[in-house]
Amino acid sequence: MKTELNYKEFLEKLLRCANEEEISELVEDIHPADILDILHQNEDDFFKILDLLPEWFLADIVEEEDDEEKYELLKRFSEGKQKNILHEMSSDELTDLVGVLDEEESNDVLEKMDKEDRDDVNKLLSYKPDTAGGIMATEFVSIRENKTIEKTLKYLQKEGPEAETAYYLYVVDNDDILKGVVSLRDIVCNDFNTKISDITNTNVISVPYYMDQEEVAQEFKKYGFLTIPVVDEKNKILGIVTVDDIVDVMEEETTEDIHRLGGVDEEERVDGTLKESIKSRLPWLIVNLVTAILAASVVGIFEGTISKVVTLATFMPIVAGMGGNAGTQSLTIVVRGIALGELTGENAKRVFLKELLVGLTTGIAIGFIIAVLGFIWEGNVIFGIVIGVAMILNMMVATMAGYIVPVILKKLKIDPALASAVFVTTVTDVLGFFFFLGLATAFINYLI
Amino acid sequence: MKTELNYKEFLEKLLRCANEEEISELVEDIHPADILDILHQNEDDFFKILDLLPEWFLADIVEEEDDEEKYELLKRFSEGKQKNILHEMSSDELTDLVGVLDEEESNDVLEKMDKEDRDDVNKLLSYKPDTAGGIMATEFVSIRENKTIEKTLKYLQKEGPEAETAYYLYVVDNDDILKGVVSLRDIVCNDFNTKISDITNTNVISVPYYMDQEEVAQEFKKYGFLTIPVVDEKNKILGIVTVDDIVDVMEEETTEDIHRLGGVDEEERVDGTLKESIKSRLPWLIVNLVTAILAASVVGIFEGTISKVVTLATFMPIVAGMGGNAGTQSLTIVVRGIALGELTGENAKRVFLKELLVGLTTGIAIGFIIAVLGFIWEGNVIFGIVIGVAMILNMMVATMAGYIVPVILKKLKIDPALASAVFVTTVTDVLGFFFFLGLATAFINYLI
Repeated sequence: MKTELNYKEFLEKLLRCANEEEISELVEDIHPADILDILHQNEDDFFKILDLLPEWFLADIVEEEDDEEKYELLKRFSEGKQKNILHEMSSDELTDLVGVLDEEESNDVLEKMDKEDRDDVNKLLSYKPDTAGGIMATEFVSIRENKTIEKTLKYLQKEGPEAETAYYLYVVDNDDILKGVVSLRDIVCNDFNTKISDITNTNVISVPYYMDQEEVAQEFKKYGFLTIPVVDEKNKILGIVTVDDIVDVMEEETTEDIHRLGGVDEEERVDGTLKESIKSRLPWLIVNLVTAILAASVVGIFEGTISKVVTLATFMPIVAGMGGNAGTQSLTIVVRGIALGELTGENAKRVFLKELLVGLTTGIAIGFIIAVLGFIWEGNVIFGIVIGVAMILNMMVATMAGYIVPVILKKLKIDPALASAVFVTTVTDVLGFFFFLGLATAFINYLI
Repeated sequence: MKTELNYKEFLEKLLRCANEEEISELVEDIHPADILDILHQNEDDFFKILDLLPEWFLADIVEEEDDEEKYELLKRFSEGKQKNILHEMSSDELTDLVGVLDEEESNDVLEKMDKEDRDDVNKLLSYKPDTAGGIMATEFVSIRENKTIEKTLKYLQKEGPEAETAYYLYVVDNDDILKGVVSLRDIVCNDFNTKISDITNTNVISVPYYMDQEEVAQEFKKYGFLTIPVVDEKNKILGIVTVDDIVDVMEEETTEDIHRLGGVDEEERVDGTLKESIKSRLPWLIVNLVTAILAASVVGIFEGTISKVVTLATFMPIVAGMGGNAGTQSLTIVVRGIALGELTGENAKRVFLKELLVGLTTGIAIGFIIAVLGFIWEGNVIFGIVIGVAMILNMMVATMAGYIVPVILKKLKIDPALASAVFVTTVTDVLGFFFFLGLATAFINYLI
């Protein structure tokens, strides 16, 4: 089990070390992510401690830092150290680092890389960040099928350390066209004289460079792989995506969905600044204000009716609100179903019918309860019927809207989580008020 | 790139095969997950085709099937085939299978396992399903540190195929106490004569068997590992958790959060039945109905005031609704922040203050707009001031409630996503109506 080291203990241990070798031994025993945690416990001494750490260890620390903070951290080192750190970092890490910088900063970083890294990063930057190309690394091991396991092992002993991950070896031809895959496990579990072609799996699953990262995550989930190769239109291998990147992608994508459903910007963080929060939320609040005024103006039309039967004002938020709740439920299931790939062309019709029936059934249940309560409150059976029917109608519309709105947004290639909630609650507010107050106006003679 | 095979093409190819060898060659080229997809394209012929497939391939198909469907699938085979399939499956897969069955069914499956598997599964079943122990597998490779790489490779060539994943080898002493870890990459990238002890990383990060699966996922995210060993109180290795299980855990946990925030049961699926949907949603709708009635009863208190100034009925849903929106925004950020571990004891006070200020600032902005609109609509400056002040108060309460409710639920060890939305919107509805109509009642003489 991991022992939680605190800043003080670590500093004491560090200062007790006599020479660089002892320091190396100390930090080797702790994961860089944990060292970074320790450093962040005391920001004042952050760089003083960092200067004590061995140079070979610095790239690991920089890689663990948040993308937004990496450049700040990097700049604090001498130019020579910066170059060494950049040299140690993998191409996808470098691309993430450069991706968040402005032009001047990114030029500065690119200049400090060696040519090979710079070319790789410039190529990777040309792919859209949310696609397979945008998240892949160019460090992979490719081998030829006519070699034996022993020869391949010798080659790996020479080349391996350069590769970000060598758990799968990709078999390619002279033009780098992907022919198959060999797992490192197959290599170590077979006799040294076995030929690579005998253990090659020619059924290699790859993704095109333009595939959306969310779809790439679905591929990982389906097949349970550790890495997936990324290819171009001619099936030439361009790079690999590793499962630890996918863990980040999944977290990013679900945070995006949850935030959008909640009506906040996908970038907002709980520990962000006041300004960021206001920038993230105020635009949506203004959109909501417009829709709330739209719904209120429906009420405005019926002010004459309300002035005759004031209890309508008491009950009307119940009809609108319950529609909103039913719509949000339906919306939640449909948006998540789309994200998980569980809502397909095949079952779309059945799901729509189910949502309609859920609206009808729960509408009848809730409508019945509120009709009885309305009857008791107002002592008027027509009042009970009016609110009961309005409730059934609004809850049916709500579940249908909860289905239709995200499906339409999806068809328009807009993220279904985005703006769905606003549309659905506008529909349920406007129609909730309209059904209830409209019916009440039609039957006003029986209500007074 | 993967070629999408359809049912018809696959069946034609399968029927064209002359003998079992040719069939084996055909299915070897397709991932079992894809074959299962093809089989599900035509449920009528599902088992007819399955009978054509080679026996060694059946366990792969069963493993790919949903946990709930596995037993149904298994039962269709002869008892001999069932035993072989169970023997091929890994301990965590077997545990998942048995975990969803009733007593009679699980006894049936357990009886068909060999003793070793049965003992493993019974032990795994004793751990809580949502913990490290509940998701781990017992198939891991443990080695001793005094061996050379060559000897270890020979050992793996003999033992390897039994292990679910051999990408990390765990170094243990005679009592199975975890001493360190060696990655397969280090094995293949070093000389054959290197001693295991020379490449052992003694800083092995493990998790205790009782750790919650969501925390285990955070460990994977932090360290980027492919597997993490699970240990008991004495640091004895019990099993391993692999990253592909974590991908499933993350999806399960976020679906749970999104569903709970949306007021539906965490188990509901978009392609589920009508009955399941109603069972998932009706209880929450009834809870919401009670809170809506509570809010409406606040309106009821002020019916006298509304009968004097009927425009209050038009504007009151705007105040309540905007509070609900602001509360939901704040809630979303805080609930997600808790799930991601970004809301900590250290920044809690700062975040609370930020939420309060967000409520104040956005409340002033929205309150100002609605005050001007109210003034224009009603031609009464006091009416504008009343609605503006009510809006500011309600939006401040909303962001505070959005922070406090999930934090309290978390302290009570209840999932913050659960019921948070109901609480927050109840607060914003009740207080929204109360602030607006209460202020209007206090200043009623200026409004008529």
